[in-house]
Amino acid sequence: MLINCVAYQEGKKLKDISIEEISDYLEIPDCFVWVALLDAELAELEKMREEFDLHPLAVEDAWHSHQRPKLDEYGDSLFSVMQLVKMEGDELTIGEVDVFVGLNYVLSVRNRNNDGFLGVRARCEREPHLLSHGAGFVFYALMDAVVDRYFPVLDTLETELEDIEEQIFIKGSARLNIERLYELKRKVTTLKHAVAPLIEETGKLHRGRVPTVCVNTREYFRDVYDHLNRINASIENMRETIGTAIQVNLSMVTIEESEVTKRLAAWAGIFAVATAFVGVWGMNFDTMPELRMKYGYPAALSAIALVCGILYRRFKKAGWL
Amino acid sequence: MLINCVAYQEGKKLKDISIEEISDYLEIPDCFVWVALLDAELAELEKMREEFDLHPLAVEDAWHSHQRPKLDEYGDSLFSVMQLVKMEGDELTIGEVDVFVGLNYVLSVRNRNNDGFLGVRARCEREPHLLSHGAGFVFYALMDAVVDRYFPVLDTLETELEDIEEQIFIKGSARLNIERLYELKRKVTTLKHAVAPLIEETGKLHRGRVPTVCVNTREYFRDVYDHLNRINASIENMRETIGTAIQVNLSMVTIEESEVTKRLAAWAGIFAVATAFVGVWGMNFDTMPELRMKYGYPAALSAIALVCGILYRRFKKAGWL
Amino acid sequence: MLINCVAYQEGKKLKDISIEEISDYLEIPDCFVWVALLDAELAELEKMREEFDLHPLAVEDAWHSHQRPKLDEYGDSLFSVMQLVKMEGDELTIGEVDVFVGLNYVLSVRNRNNDGFLGVRARCEREPHLLSHGAGFVFYALMDAVVDRYFPVLDTLETELEDIEEQIFIKGSARLNIERLYELKRKVTTLKHAVAPLIEETGKLHRGRVPTVCVNTREYFRDVYDHLNRINASIENMRETIGTAIQVNLSMVTIEESEVTKRLAAWAGIFAVATAFVGVWGMNFDTMPELRMKYGYPAALSAIALVCGILYRRFKKAGWL
Amino acid sequence: MLINCVAYQEGKKLKDISIEEISDYLEIPDCFVWVALLDAELAELEKMREEFDLHPLAVEDAWHSHQRPKLDEYGDSLFSVMQLVKMEGDELTIGEVDVFVGLNYVLSVRNRNNDGFLGVRARCEREPHLLSHGAGFVFYALMDAVVDRYFPVLDTLETELEDIEEQIFIKGSARLNIERLYELKRKVTTLKHAVAPLIEETGKLHRGRVPTVCVNTREYFRDVYDHLNRINASIENMRETIGTAIQVNLSMVTIEESEVTKRLAAWAGIFAVATAFVGVWGMNFDTMPELRMKYGYPAALSAIALVCGILYRRFKKAGWL
Amino acid sequence: MLINCVAYQEGKKLKDISIEEISDYLEIPDCFVWVALLDAELAELEKMREEFDLHPLAVEDAWHSHQRPKLDEYGDSLFSVMQLVKMEGDELTIGEVDVFVGLNYVLSVRNRNNDGFLGVRARCEREPHLLSHGAGFVFYALMDAVVDRYFPVLDTLETELEDIEEQIFIKGSARLNIERLYELKRKVTTLKHAVAPLIEETGKLHRGRVPTVCVNTREYFRDVYDHLNRINASIENMRETIGTAIQVNLSMVTIEESEVTKRLAAWAGIFAVATAFVGVWGMNFDTMPELRMKYGYPAALSAIALVCGILYRRFKKAGWL
Repeated sequence: MLINCVAYQEGKKLKDISIEEISDYLEIPDCFVWVALLDAELAELEKMREEFDLHPLAVEDAWHSHQRPKLDEYGDSLFSVMQLVKMEGDELTIGEVDVFVGLNYVLSVRNRNNDGFLGVRARCEREPHLLSHGAGFVFYALMDAVVDRYFPVLDTLETELEDIEEQIFIKGSARLNIERLYELKRKVTTLKHAVAPLIEETGKLHRGRVPTVCVNTREYFRDVYDHLNRINASIENMRETIGTAIQVNLSMVTIEESEVTKRLAAWAGIFAVATAFVGVWGMNFDTMPELRMKYGYPAALSAIALVCGILYRRFKKAGWL
Repeated sequence: MLINCVAYQEGKKLKDISIEEISDYLEIPDCFVWVALLDAELAELEKMREEFDLHPLAVEDAWHSHQRPKLDEYGDSLFSVMQLVKMEGDELTIGEVDVFVGLNYVLSVRNRNNDGFLGVRARCEREPHLLSHGAGFVFYALMDAVVDRYFPVLDTLETELEDIEEQIFIKGSARLNIERLYELKRKVTTLKHAVAPLIEETGKLHRGRVPTVCVNTREYFRDVYDHLNRINASIENMRETIGTAIQVNLSMVTIEESEVTKRLAAWAGIFAVATAFVGVWGMNFDTMPELRMKYGYPAALSAIALVCGILYRRFKKAGWL
Repeated sequence: MLINCVAYQEGKKLKDISIEEISDYLEIPDCFVWVALLDAELAELEKMREEFDLHPLAVEDAWHSHQRPKLDEYGDSLFSVMQLVKMEGDELTIGEVDVFVGLNYVLSVRNRNNDGFLGVRARCEREPHLLSHGAGFVFYALMDAVVDRYFPVLDTLETELEDIEEQIFIKGSARLNIERLYELKRKVTTLKHAVAPLIEETGKLHRGRVPTVCVNTREYFRDVYDHLNRINASIENMRETIGTAIQVNLSMVTIEESEVTKRLAAWAGIFAVATAFVGVWGMNFDTMPELRMKYGYPAALSAIALVCGILYRRFKKAGWL
Repeated sequence: MLINCVAYQEGKKLKDISIEEISDYLEIPDCFVWVALLDAELAELEKMREEFDLHPLAVEDAWHSHQRPKLDEYGDSLFSVMQLVKMEGDELTIGEVDVFVGLNYVLSVRNRNNDGFLGVRARCEREPHLLSHGAGFVFYALMDAVVDRYFPVLDTLETELEDIEEQIFIKGSARLNIERLYELKRKVTTLKHAVAPLIEETGKLHRGRVPTVCVNTREYFRDVYDHLNRINASIENMRETIGTAIQVNLSMVTIEESEVTKRLAAWAGIFAVATAFVGVWGMNFDTMPELRMKYGYPAALSAIALVCGILYRRFKKAGWL
Repeated sequence: MLINCVAYQEGKKLKDISIEEISDYLEIPDCFVWVALLDAELAELEKMREEFDLHPLAVEDAWHSHQRPKLDEYGDSLFSVMQLVKMEGDELTIGEVDVFVGLNYVLSVRNRNNDGFLGVRARCEREPHLLSHGAGFVFYALMDAVVDRYFPVLDTLETELEDIEEQIFIKGSARLNIERLYELKRKVTTLKHAVAPLIEETGKLHRGRVPTVCVNTREYFRDVYDHLNRINASIENMRETIGTAIQVNLSMVTIEESEVTKRLAAWAGIFAVATAFVGVWGMNFDTMPELRMKYGYPAALSAIALVCGILYRRFKKAGWL
């Protein structure tokens, strides 16, 4: 579905144009065309391929979608794949935006994601001195918008982790903790797979031999690169913390079990003593003088209580109870 | 066994030729020969070596088969080893295809795998404008076909992993889970050993100094490279997830055991108390007034039931029962 | 908030100047201006941007703060972000200092940290022959001061670790140890995130193509680089030790539990034997000759005591008690 | 001990020569000398040093033996250390072969290993067109022979691993498995220490600036390099599998223990109930009507059996028994 | 404290000189000065700085000592920090030697270590043809001596590890093993921190752009580099083995506990059965015919013994006892 198709000249919007006009405007000097598609159909992509003279392999990748983030150069033009990560309720959803960038055009194809880039277009149009950098700046603006959307996702995951960390030393929460940690790790990994290849990609846009179309905006791409590195450092940190937390959780379960075993041992000991004693006086020997004594019974009960009490105190002192 | 032996000129099939004619056709300009062998015998390979003037070390590798995927350059010609991975029932089987590529020939030797590359040949012949790139394009088409066959294997393994993940927090499934995870890890490792060296190999075909025969098709090899990277990222993800799952599975076992220990401790406690009480009234002291009371017996039973009931409620509340 | 704004010439303080005068002094040859801000407001930064002609992206980063340590080059000028780590009570607090360095100016912006760099300025002014190196030396002096503040933090963390290590083989301390190790790991990670990117940063200031402003002071930056490497080595050491300690702690818990299980088993065995014996003589068979013997009862008690004693000695010998 | 000392010219054996003649033959063009020593004594090495003009440091290394595999260049000559790994019974023994290679000589010194390289010499002499490559080819042939001897060792270790893997899910074998895994890991590590540095070494012999003596045989060294890489991939695979197997083994022990705990709990529960019941009817209350009933006893036994039976079925159903 | 101060010319000792004469001798061509200090005081270092024209940062590092091993170039001169590791009783002590090397001087400053380098000086003076390489050779000789002292430490640690490995599968030694492994790991890490940075350092002295003073002795530094690599490989090996041993130790504890649990379960079962039986015949029902039989009692005892015996045999067979 076509969202926009606009021609710009010297940083200012010229006019909305029809798809058929694109090739005409591409020939005007200092003019560039910016097209936005949503969940594009094959016919649309084919049409674009003709108008912009895109490379068939790039178009095929955009059509199949579900690519890993990457940046491919085809002569002077670029084909970039970025993932759109979004928190919907408790789940992460993954969309994709494919951007074709040439010296005088930008074509973005958004897939499986409802949040448009109209804000990016509006911001660009508000700053003609920046937009006059041409297609490279638009590319930057799109990438910046994609990366900015990772931050709230990262925050949600970090909050979740802090939440779990508060539970981790609380007794009886081990099962829930481990399930949450496992689920969180999966989400963090998903985010990482969107971010990590993009770092490599932006690295190519500000270091070494930078593609012509991005030469004037390389400092902007370095800024995106810095943001991605920050996100990545947080992700790595979370991954490691989750790993440690899983380990610590196991330790806590083992510690708890060890405490239960001790209490079990202590009480079992106390009652075993009592049972043995009463068993003794339940024997049927003819000659058991204490059974005949007047206060034998209360004395026996007291003796048992005393022994059990002593045991109880010793266990208490040893920290088993 | 010889499958095909065909001469092509300017992207079009010239004719099926006999092995003896190969060297004649190699001398025709703009002409190249594409030969396919299956489980080749030493004599066949020897014959090929003569016709195509192959390097003895490469032929030896093709004969011994069971190589690690690799790409060797011998002057202007290439020798490539790729693994064919296939899911047969529950098992992964590993085949191998060795490809000799020169400026005007392609020789593929398939081993221990029944799925031919006739589809590749048909597709190439349908697109003469691509096939006119010559041997390099045929090499790409073969490699693309090999890599495309990794995807269904990957999907099967990922489905298996998701299947296990659904079981992982279910009580009593620990033993089965761990066996399945171990088995899955082995399969994933097998797939990895097919994929990882191939990434390196394709890297050499589109970056830096590309061998002459592949210069015009380097963008196609980059596409294969991207696919392999996607597969590899999925594999790495699975490996890590399996590692975490094994750890989590151990945690779950320990948690379950800890719960069993608690229940054991609780019931042991309750019955130990009951046993101690009945033992008391089983003693043979002469003077035990309660034994003489009319309602002594039901009172005693009630007392025991009461104490056990209180214990039961406390354990219930503490989550031990 | 403005802390200082001073002009220097040939290593000597010229005078305190007002913000408005900055651009005038920047034009005097051999003269440079050193400005220090604290928790700068947007208006202040905007003013600075005009006076020093700073890059908008750098200013934006300084305004948003909470950056990852980094070093960006904008033409001849540098923008550096460093983290100020401080131990406050039991907690680590993270501040930030952003430094803009040009050929004839240094602008430092300190955020969320109360310890000023007046000492640095004083030290610089005491050594005119060093200060005459210009802005690069001031930049070094600031960085050196930031790095020197990491050492006491590192020492505190190392002391804490040694403290835990002394507890790790002491029975009953497992739960506390694991909590402390987890907490310590978090702090160490925080420190690492301040140090590690800074190593990369200082690497750029003494190796390969060094920015013009730092060319004469590259040996000084190498010194900072060495210090950072030393800190980093200690951090890595601590991280690994913590990992091992967590593992060892788990082992200790399991060992302890195993010892408790053995003692439980031993005592349970002893009392089970006693209980079985007394149960035998509590049976109501008519013909049980030993019950009728005169010394049957003491003999029985002695027999039980004997058996239990033998068991006790055997368990003792086996190390179960 | 001197094994052989032979002069070759244009790929053909000239004659066996005495050590004193070496320097004479070295001066004949197109002629090279190939000497083999076994467990050489210092005097022999010293003699060789004089004849071949070897570097003192290399000779010292050969004398001390027990080196890590390495390749040192001394001007135009090479000094290579390789480890000979051999399975003797259940143990791995490590020998060493030190090879000095110059433009017109090869000197091999074998230590602590009984399997000579006569086969290598025979093979070389059978193929004069290859041997005419000179010292470089001999060096390759020796290295190839050393590497070929790693394969049977690798196979033995892999068979051992598969053997353990079949035991890993079998109850009661945990202790033996862990001992075998630990032992196997040690052997694998030993093999790795022989292989890994050699990869680096052969890398220097076919990539980038190759030493003069090996320039014509670089494709042969790449072949060795490929073999080493295959071995190394298998080793890495085994190391990882062993790591996982140790983890899985621990899981299996814990799972088994958990099952035992459940059975223990179940039987303890059943007998505790029975004991409590018989205890009740063993009490000495005057008024216990059921004791007076005619069929009280069998009824009581039946009641107990019934309750125990119900418990048994419930435990069975829950999978505890 | 000054140990030596000697001037050398063309590899031969000229004479012992006073500190004040140093600068005079530095001006004589082909002459170099070798000074050795022990635990130098600030004044001594300051004096040296003047005589040799050392860089202030290097002197500061030497004064503060406790540096990480490193190699800094200051123009034509080098500043090297190496750690002296020594086994004293059961503890590792860390000393430090700082070496300043110029084209015509060597200054070594030894700290916190009692073993002097007089042997090094003697060895150098015995070999004038080597010493004539000048300061670079002295630097090598010192470094070689430092590295040679790592070997006995390494041997001690490896012996300790082998010692632990022999205990690891022995029952009841788990607690001691884990303590020893933890302690050993700490020592190994200490040694690693001395060795690893030194590898990097020596790498700079024989590969790529080698500092002028070491150009003629680069093959000697490569020899040191090889030794360090060997030590490092052993260290890495030990670290990994320790890690595995800790894991295996945990497994052994769990296995042992599992065995104890089984024995506990078995004996508990046997006695529970006996107790239940005797409890049955301890009941007070009026009509219990077997109680009235003549051989009821021995028959009952036999029955109990029989049942227990059967249980015992079954447990024995199942490997629980």
